[in-house]
Amino acid sequence: MQSFSIFSQANSKQPAKSTYIIMKRIRSILIAFGLFAFACSSASAYDPSPLQDFCVAIKDIKNGVFVNGKFCKDPKLAVAEDFFFSGLNRPGNTSNPVGSNVTMINVDIIPGLNTLGISLVRIDYAPYGVNPPHTHPRGSEILLVVEGTLYVGFVTANPDNRLFTKILNPGDVFVFPFGMIHFQFNIGKTAAVAFAGLSSQNAGVITIANAVFGSNPPINPDVLAKAFQLNKNVVKYLQSRF
Amino acid sequence: MQSFSIFSQANSKQPAKSTYIIMKRIRSILIAFGLFAFACSSASAYDPSPLQDFCVAIKDIKNGVFVNGKFCKDPKLAVAEDFFFSGLNRPGNTSNPVGSNVTMINVDIIPGLNTLGISLVRIDYAPYGVNPPHTHPRGSEILLVVEGTLYVGFVTANPDNRLFTKILNPGDVFVFPFGMIHFQFNIGKTAAVAFAGLSSQNAGVITIANAVFGSNPPINPDVLAKAFQLNKNVVKYLQSRF
Amino acid sequence: MQSFSIFSQANSKQPAKSTYIIMKRIRSILIAFGLFAFACSSASAYDPSPLQDFCVAIKDIKNGVFVNGKFCKDPKLAVAEDFFFSGLNRPGNTSNPVGSNVTMINVDIIPGLNTLGISLVRIDYAPYGVNPPHTHPRGSEILLVVEGTLYVGFVTANPDNRLFTKILNPGDVFVFPFGMIHFQFNIGKTAAVAFAGLSSQNAGVITIANAVFGSNPPINPDVLAKAFQLNKNVVKYLQSRF
Amino acid sequence: MQSFSIFSQANSKQPAKSTYIIMKRIRSILIAFGLFAFACSSASAYDPSPLQDFCVAIKDIKNGVFVNGKFCKDPKLAVAEDFFFSGLNRPGNTSNPVGSNVTMINVDIIPGLNTLGISLVRIDYAPYGVNPPHTHPRGSEILLVVEGTLYVGFVTANPDNRLFTKILNPGDVFVFPFGMIHFQFNIGKTAAVAFAGLSSQNAGVITIANAVFGSNPPINPDVLAKAFQLNKNVVKYLQSRF
Amino acid sequence: MQSFSIFSQANSKQPAKSTYIIMKRIRSILIAFGLFAFACSSASAYDPSPLQDFCVAIKDIKNGVFVNGKFCKDPKLAVAEDFFFSGLNRPGNTSNPVGSNVTMINVDIIPGLNTLGISLVRIDYAPYGVNPPHTHPRGSEILLVVEGTLYVGFVTANPDNRLFTKILNPGDVFVFPFGMIHFQFNIGKTAAVAFAGLSSQNAGVITIANAVFGSNPPINPDVLAKAFQLNKNVVKYLQSRF
Amino acid sequence: MQSFSIFSQANSKQPAKSTYIIMKRIRSILIAFGLFAFACSSASAYDPSPLQDFCVAIKDIKNGVFVNGKFCKDPKLAVAEDFFFSGLNRPGNTSNPVGSNVTMINVDIIPGLNTLGISLVRIDYAPYGVNPPHTHPRGSEILLVVEGTLYVGFVTANPDNRLFTKILNPGDVFVFPFGMIHFQFNIGKTAAVAFAGLSSQNAGVITIANAVFGSNPPINPDVLAKAFQLNKNVVKYLQSRF
Repeated sequence: MQSFSIFSQANSKQPAKSTYIIMKRIRSILIAFGLFAFACSSASAYDPSPLQDFCVAIKDIKNGVFVNGKFCKDPKLAVAEDFFFSGLNRPGNTSNPVGSNVTMINVDIIPGLNTLGISLVRIDYAPYGVNPPHTHPRGSEILLVVEGTLYVGFVTANPDNRLFTKILNPGDVFVFPFGMIHFQFNIGKTAAVAFAGLSSQNAGVITIANAVFGSNPPINPDVLAKAFQLNKNVVKYLQSRF
Repeated sequence: MQSFSIFSQANSKQPAKSTYIIMKRIRSILIAFGLFAFACSSASAYDPSPLQDFCVAIKDIKNGVFVNGKFCKDPKLAVAEDFFFSGLNRPGNTSNPVGSNVTMINVDIIPGLNTLGISLVRIDYAPYGVNPPHTHPRGSEILLVVEGTLYVGFVTANPDNRLFTKILNPGDVFVFPFGMIHFQFNIGKTAAVAFAGLSSQNAGVITIANAVFGSNPPINPDVLAKAFQLNKNVVKYLQSRF
Repeated sequence: MQSFSIFSQANSKQPAKSTYIIMKRIRSILIAFGLFAFACSSASAYDPSPLQDFCVAIKDIKNGVFVNGKFCKDPKLAVAEDFFFSGLNRPGNTSNPVGSNVTMINVDIIPGLNTLGISLVRIDYAPYGVNPPHTHPRGSEILLVVEGTLYVGFVTANPDNRLFTKILNPGDVFVFPFGMIHFQFNIGKTAAVAFAGLSSQNAGVITIANAVFGSNPPINPDVLAKAFQLNKNVVKYLQSRF
Repeated sequence: MQSFSIFSQANSKQPAKSTYIIMKRIRSILIAFGLFAFACSSASAYDPSPLQDFCVAIKDIKNGVFVNGKFCKDPKLAVAEDFFFSGLNRPGNTSNPVGSNVTMINVDIIPGLNTLGISLVRIDYAPYGVNPPHTHPRGSEILLVVEGTLYVGFVTANPDNRLFTKILNPGDVFVFPFGMIHFQFNIGKTAAVAFAGLSSQNAGVITIANAVFGSNPPINPDVLAKAFQLNKNVVKYLQSRF
Repeated sequence: MQSFSIFSQANSKQPAKSTYIIMKRIRSILIAFGLFAFACSSASAYDPSPLQDFCVAIKDIKNGVFVNGKFCKDPKLAVAEDFFFSGLNRPGNTSNPVGSNVTMINVDIIPGLNTLGISLVRIDYAPYGVNPPHTHPRGSEILLVVEGTLYVGFVTANPDNRLFTKILNPGDVFVFPFGMIHFQFNIGKTAAVAFAGLSSQNAGVITIANAVFGSNPPINPDVLAKAFQLNKNVVKYLQSRF
Repeated sequence: MQSFSIFSQANSKQPAKSTYIIMKRIRSILIAFGLFAFACSSASAYDPSPLQDFCVAIKDIKNGVFVNGKFCKDPKLAVAEDFFFSGLNRPGNTSNPVGSNVTMINVDIIPGLNTLGISLVRIDYAPYGVNPPHTHPRGSEILLVVEGTLYVGFVTANPDNRLFTKILNPGDVFVFPFGMIHFQFNIGKTAAVAFAGLSSQNAGVITIANAVFGSNPPINPDVLAKAFQLNKNVVKYLQSRF
């Protein structure tokens, strides 16, 4: 009798152990997604236009008051450093379950990006590392490979859910349309590096697996069981690991 | 020896049969998602502004030429029917695996919506039916329950992936922010009905499970195995069903 | 000798009394419009896009400082209730001269709507009640009838001023383009109910009669006499009642 | 016994004749509004941004196909005349019931304005002429008086319907916010002239009296009787004149 | 032997004196550009849309906190004067090296313009005065000549850098597309006057010569020497005068 | 007797020859700018939002009809290559007078970028090469240095014309705000390379020197003589070279 193991490399003969392995693996995923949650914001949107030459973001003012976008500093006090970031030549740490790392340079990192409708990311990939399926709720993305070989793709919305993919080598460029689910996968034996421009000062990133199974608090497992046609206990278990 | 069945109600003692059941179930999901793919576009976006009183959409002109949005008919030939749709009082058919149905009234249904930045949906829910997790790449959504009791929620982007949920009864209204993953679940024993306004003439809908596991063609299973930390064979199997 | 009575049901043989009746009637209109002024904001616009997942509106900060849209609360303090409203199943009170009532669910009612470009209204109509001609300066509208029979319409801009009308029954949908003057009229013997989605968090509503004859302070009567070719005393009288 | 005549200068003792006078007067209004319908588009909006240096409008292509805005000519064929108009120094003809005339220089007049989000008007006022209450559904307006003395104003939306007015002399500037009802009135004994910039290539103009009483076809008189609390026969009569 | 003098009227036989003359001339230019820097902002852009009837700008709140656009006053405290400016009938002082003067009526002058996407300028030209080449980073412009004769033009972007020009007399209108370099030149023997509408509340103006040679601090002269293929000492000298 | 040579390395003792040298130099500049005109479009804008998942640009349809942006192909016929470009790893040819080269990847190069509000450039710099002062009329820019050392800067609009500069090494990022004049200069002895993301599908580039002195046809020299306070013959001469 042959059966599939649901989780990679798990031995179906040892459910207890396999469960343990699964738990560890999922914890790793959780950590990885945590990292990605911060790093992966690799897209951009159609931000409201600027109404002055620049509007350098400041920390939100006292009493917890916020605005759409950011409050700005007195333009007279703006300095070149407000438009500057150093360090995108440093590889990100890809020692995580998905084997990739995103360094996001958005308005939280360069305050001068406020009102300018653009941001930048660096993505590092370990061999066979993946930047897992995600969307940018507020941005399009244009990606340039500088090292390694990536298999990349995006899926269109319902009802077609068409997948467009391409294998990219250094110097190759690919576009991920606004709001579409997309991913990159390092199919080479060596590390890969890409840079991407995004059409928003804060495109945001929604890593699918994380948002669905790792939300805080978890989604009612009845919802996910029905939506994914999974046994409710399995859903609960998955959620407990994320 | 106790083990989890990954799929709801599947009998772990009968893998062959369970596989068959799973296959049938997944086929059902596929059909259901197919329906949702068309129906579920329940949100809206920040469309470009109109440049005339109205611009009633027409079928795309010959030679397969398109524009952002739609070509329009001669305004002199516009009639009231161009701004009209009849039949949103008819319940949708919820006899499908997820037990819900979305009737989408967007620019494809009412051509007069072109350039107007708004659309509408009706959602029917069988008892315990779910409108599965999805995003609208081009829209926000405001939902009104008119029958039944729904558990609804949305998840914010990385890194927090916070879940906001509410139980809604008739007359209750809830908001799903632009681009966020959200869902509704009928937690009552009777059918439920909701209407929703969307901030785009064509908000689009990306049903998560469908786009990830049911894309056409399928995503390289190595990507999904790595992203979800699943055995590659399992990923392939899932994909073959969707 | 036959002559028209300017005001409905007024007896031309008793001018003094009819004047009194007119005065009472106009006062009623004034009150009715006052109610509508608050309730009727049934449209939507092309708001600036969001720059974060959400930006829940707060009361304007001290010292009377405002912004385009709303100041927001600390996102860490946002709760599901910020995206929620209850009570749209309750009929509005249509005991007023125009016989209709609009319940507006915009950013002032649901603070989570801030930056999301969408809102919602419920409109109740007494038999033969009318939602009088009005515009939404910042929004398009998509209306769904759920009870009763409505005669609805909108008028295009100069020079054509074309009227598009339709009789709507439950389940029927109609679209009012951005900024156009439009109305709904209950032509049935029973109460009617409609819901409408609007393309702005705060579409605004300008009830024509109210803004023209009931402004505060009144428009110079010479202007209205010339514009409407009415006797100046009549204009003053009308204005005194609104 | 004292009573008001509803229409200016009409003799209340001679209803038959007054009716005739009214009819003639209303016909004049109709003609005047017809002129204004074309001329009065004195405001501006938030048009979609340009995607190239310029996009000179052309007549709509064959088969009655249109787009949001205008089709454009081959940019290589653009000439300076596409951005040019001559003749705004010529006074408009104010020999009409309202005593004013608007010359509108929008994208229909200067094709080079397409995608540029701006237009211009010249307004001439006979002594005591009025540019009657109107809105621009797609624009804000900034007005400059160059000759004469104008009483100008705008009314805010519900519920306040606040009136802001100012008397303007040559060199004075006044702003009419997006979508608000506004007017200008020449309170001097001599002709007046103003120019205004508008925030759209095609802001549109809705002259209130025209759109409400002079639509084509007329609004159901029951609607207007109820909305304005007027006798239905009067409404019908008014409509027959416009 | 004949040679060109680089600066107008400078005598090549007297380099020392010519240098002095040049220095004086450049100082004049500097002053002139300084005036223009403030005055010349004659264009407009695609500002974010309003989210309320109006949002009258106030001085920035304490602690040097700013926003995109302006903070607003309590709308209840708005008055007609907030939408008003007086004095655009007064000629600007053209006694400066370029012989022109721009009076800019933007959101800094009329606070009610905030969120309205429009502004206005008056430009005075001495005989043979020039409004030197400049761009509006956030606006299109529509210009009307009311006195005199102007030679006007704009240049398109790379690679064509096409120049479109026209000679304008009173009543003539010309359009300068969004972001393009443009200029006006009084080719008549008498003073000229023009008004222009701009598509932003704060279009901004970048006078080319000023920004390139007169920045504060100066651009590294190596950059300008290379860019303009000029001797570095000449660049430094020019910079020292601006 | 010491005098400045206006052009670098030109010998003031030999005007005839120096004139020749100048002519050759200017021709070189012309060629260089020609190259830059095409290549340098390194910025981005606030394009109108997409109204469908994607809208792959096609060559403009027959009869020279265009739209704002691009016509699109039938979405059913879209392929991955529509979103792809290969070759950005190849250095640009910097053997030109300014010593730099821009490779622009915009909607003209990747048709899938249409409606997506983003583009990308690669810039190569010879030792001491400069990307000369220019603006992007429709975009902001975020630049990343990957090789070499650049001195970069931008100048704000009038009246301050403040210069913000920074020396960038590999891994350093700098932001050029929307519409501002900016430049990069390779201050190292070796070649430098940078990539930049831009906030528009077609940001455009206006190289200052080219647009002012090299327009086609040339600007009336009286304008430039007055604007730059130069002898008219010199202006004409300069123009004849560009």
